[in-house]
Order: sequence, then structure tokens, then C-alpha cells
Amino acid sequence: MSSNAESDRLRVVLVATRNPLNIGAAARAMSNFGFFHLRVVNPYELAFREARSAVGAAPLLAQATEFKTVAEAVADCTLVVGTTAVSRRQPQHPVRRLEQAAPLVRKHLATGRVALLFGSEKRGLSNEDLSYCHWLLRIPTREEHRSMNLGQAVAVCLYELARDPQAASRPEKHIPAASADLERLTTLLLGALRSSGYLKANPGVSHKRRSAAPTDEKIRRLIHRLHLSTSDAELTLGILRQILWKSQQDNEIS
Amino acid sequence: MSSNAESDRLRVVLVATRNPLNIGAAARAMSNFGFFHLRVVNPYELAFREARSAVGAAPLLAQATEFKTVAEAVADCTLVVGTTAVSRRQPQHPVRRLEQAAPLVRKHLATGRVALLFGSEKRGLSNEDLSYCHWLLRIPTREEHRSMNLGQAVAVCLYELARDPQAASRPEKHIPAASADLERLTTLLLGALRSSGYLKANPGVSHKRRSAAPTDEKIRRLIHRLHLSTSDAELTLGILRQILWKSQQDNEIS
Repeated sequence: MSSNAESDRLRVVLVATRNPLNIGAAARAMSNFGFFHLRVVNPYELAFREARSAVGAAPLLAQATEFKTVAEAVADCTLVVGTTAVSRRQPQHPVRRLEQAAPLVRKHLATGRVALLFGSEKRGLSNEDLSYCHWLLRIPTREEHRSMNLGQAVAVCLYELARDPQAASRPEKHIPAASADLERLTTLLLGALRSSGYLKANPGVSHKRRSAAPTDEKIRRLIHRLHLSTSDAELTLGILRQILWKSQQDNEIS
Repeated sequence: MSSNAESDRLRVVLVATRNPLNIGAAARAMSNFGFFHLRVVNPYELAFREARSAVGAAPLLAQATEFKTVAEAVADCTLVVGTTAVSRRQPQHPVRRLEQAAPLVRKHLATGRVALLFGSEKRGLSNEDLSYCHWLLRIPTREEHRSMNLGQAVAVCLYELARDPQAASRPEKHIPAASADLERLTTLLLGALRSSGYLKANPGVSHKRRSAAPTDEKIRRLIHRLHLSTSDAELTLGILRQILWKSQQDNEIS
């Protein structure tokens, strides 16, 4: 969502919800993604405001408004979108996948209020509820298992509205090690490999100065492939030095 | 997800989950979005397989595999991604937003197995758990309320992996009405407006043949703005005809 003003224009409308824990879960997801206006139409459990599932969202749940009818709950909205698990409820209602629905909802939120309706856990929205909708939205679940948990469906819809593929991730604090560090590491590792007997101890020095011995090159390439950060190069140098020191001590003792 | 083979390579790993209902909810979301391999590490409640929240996903939950350690649970995976609510746990771990993480995970799933780790409800993943991860993923929740419900977090992550902005919505069955139908409707409405006294009964016929009377144009433009489908134009014509017929009947009687 590009601005708070836009997310402030969304109304999440839960119609005839049976389980108050689902109302609390919806409130939590709303708070997670920055949508604060919850409307509840004819909830089965009147004491839904005490739902313990609204972790961190108790104030939002306390401020939820109650309505007797869908008509009243959407009266001040200029776009009403119903959610459905089936891909086609009534031929007169266009059904859009969530990915395509979200840009349309966001566009509308730039200037007007949008109501997003969720039906009861068992039956979804009734045909009467749907007659108040401009169009319907479907979360792209598997055909063999379409029906989602209500709290999860609310979370997924609000995530899609809030998602921002352009938002930068926190920059990775990967500062690549300098070549000099990698070279120190290569030298140290080669030393360790020779003193441990993995490589021959005294390789014939190449006469062509510009080409290192093939083994040296192999180890250098290995070190470069690791994409070590400055701090990881430091850590690895320390580890290698300690191992080398210990093996030399042992050699002196034996 | 572009193919079943790819989604079949994902392992959802729930570590030290306290509430079995959350394991069930995770299983349901997995089944909704087409991911079937659940792994559970040290669950608090050993009888988690009976969780009633796994609506429609009981077989998936029954086939979940149990592990004693994270190391064993991720042993056969070539990419291990941890989920976190904080934007930076440890400087050595890159944290990516879900929107940016998903394409990387999908790319990896094309050839290798990926483990997606979720920590316990209270504490998330421990530093030891995180040390098995290649990088971390963060759902872009509000800074003031980062922590999501576990079942909702699983649903959002799997939705993002399964989402496909290119997938075509079901084509809208909106076949626009032909101009002839709109003209019939305009004529009928004008007749009704005149017979009801809303408009003057016999307007002076314009002498310039190419320009209709301003009122006619106004009504024609209104009808065109409605973007009626063939069937809705039919419906509206029927309604208008009936109203006109009734009012003529009433006029004859009175």
C-alpha cells in the first residue's frame, strides 16, 4: 500500500462469522498489515471482542463496528468486493483472482472507500450478500481444496494488498573480503595442506613466473568461490591460524 | 508455482510449535496451496496429528514426519530458509522481504529441495536453528506489530510461492449489449419519461436532422455509460416495458 491514507479507506467486513477466534485472528492480521477498520455483521458470538486470538490487536477489535445488515455495513463504500472460494458463483458476477483483484482495489482506495467482504466459515457469503458486491475475488487455492480458514484468508488478502515488490530489502551487510585477505587465506590454507601432508611439502617452483602451480590455482579458485565477507574471511583466517599453531605444537612434542 | 514437481520439492518445517491447532492450520494452508510435505521438529504436543484445525488436510497431517533436531529435518535440502519477524536477527544472515524471497525459492525449487522453517509461537527460531539457514525471510508486517499468528504466516508465505500474476482470471462473461439494443432502451426510456410527465410529451422535432434533441442525447449518453451486458439490456428492457404497460393500463382505467 503506497500510503496510509489509502489503507485507511479499506473496510474489512466479516459477515455472520461463527467462531469469535476467527474474528480475533482477522483483527490481528489487519493490524499486522496496517488496516484498522473492522466491521462485523451479525456475528454468531456477541462477545467476540474478547477473542484471545487478537494478539496485539485488542484496540482494533474494541473499535470494530457492528451492523445488522450488509447494506448498512457497506453504505458508505464506493466499491464492494466479495470473497468466494468458488470460481464462479453467479454468471452475473465477475470473479477475479486475488493477484489481479488487488491492483484494482488499490486503485480505488486512492480516492474512495472499499469494503472487502468475508462470509461465514461454513457457507461463505449468501446470494443476498453477493448482490451488494460489484465483483468477487478468489484466492487461488487448489481446485481440490478451495476452502481456506477465515483468519488465513483475511491474512492472505491483506498481505496481497500491502505487498510491494519494489520495496527494497534491508541491504545485506555483506562486505566482500578484499583480494589481499583472500590471498592471505589461500597462502595459509596451502601451508596447512602441505604441513598436513594433503599436498606435497615442497612443490617445484614454476619457472614461468606468471603461472602459479596448478594446485595453488585450484585452492585460490576455491577460496574465491566462497564469496567470503570481510568478517568471515577474518574468522576463517583465525580458525586456520589456530589449527596450524596446534598442529605445529603437536609436531614439536611428538 | 509453475509445476507440481516444483511445489513437491518444498518442505515446510515447524520447529518447537506449542499449539497443535497451529500445526493443523499450517497443514490446511499447505493443502490449499498445493504443498504436501510437512516436517515437525520437537512439537510441544505429541498428539498434534489430531488437530481439528486441519480441515480438509487430515491426510497431509497424518503423513507429516517428525524429527528430533533441525539438522535432521533439513539434511536432504539444498536451500534452508528461516522465517523471522525481526528485520535483522544477526548481521551474518541476510534478511529478504517475502516478495523478493519467493522468486529465489521458486528458482531453487526448479532443481533442488528447499526447507522453509517456522519457529515457535513465542520465540520464533533460536540462534541455533538459524545457523542451519542460508538466509532469512521476513513477511512485510508493520514495524509496530510484526509478529503474526503462525498459521497465518504459513498461509501468506505459501500464497506468495503459489501466486501467479500471469494466470488468467476466469474470463468475465460480460458480452456488451449491441448498439441497437441500447437504442431500443433509449427510445423506450424516453417514451416512459414523456408519458410519466418527467419530460414534455411532444418535443419540437429538430429541423437539423443530424442533431437529436438535447434531452434525447442526454438519455442516450446515460444508457451508454451503464456498460450494460446483452443480458442486462434484455432485463432492463423487460422491466421498462412492464412499467410502461402498467402505467398505460392505469391511465385507461382512470
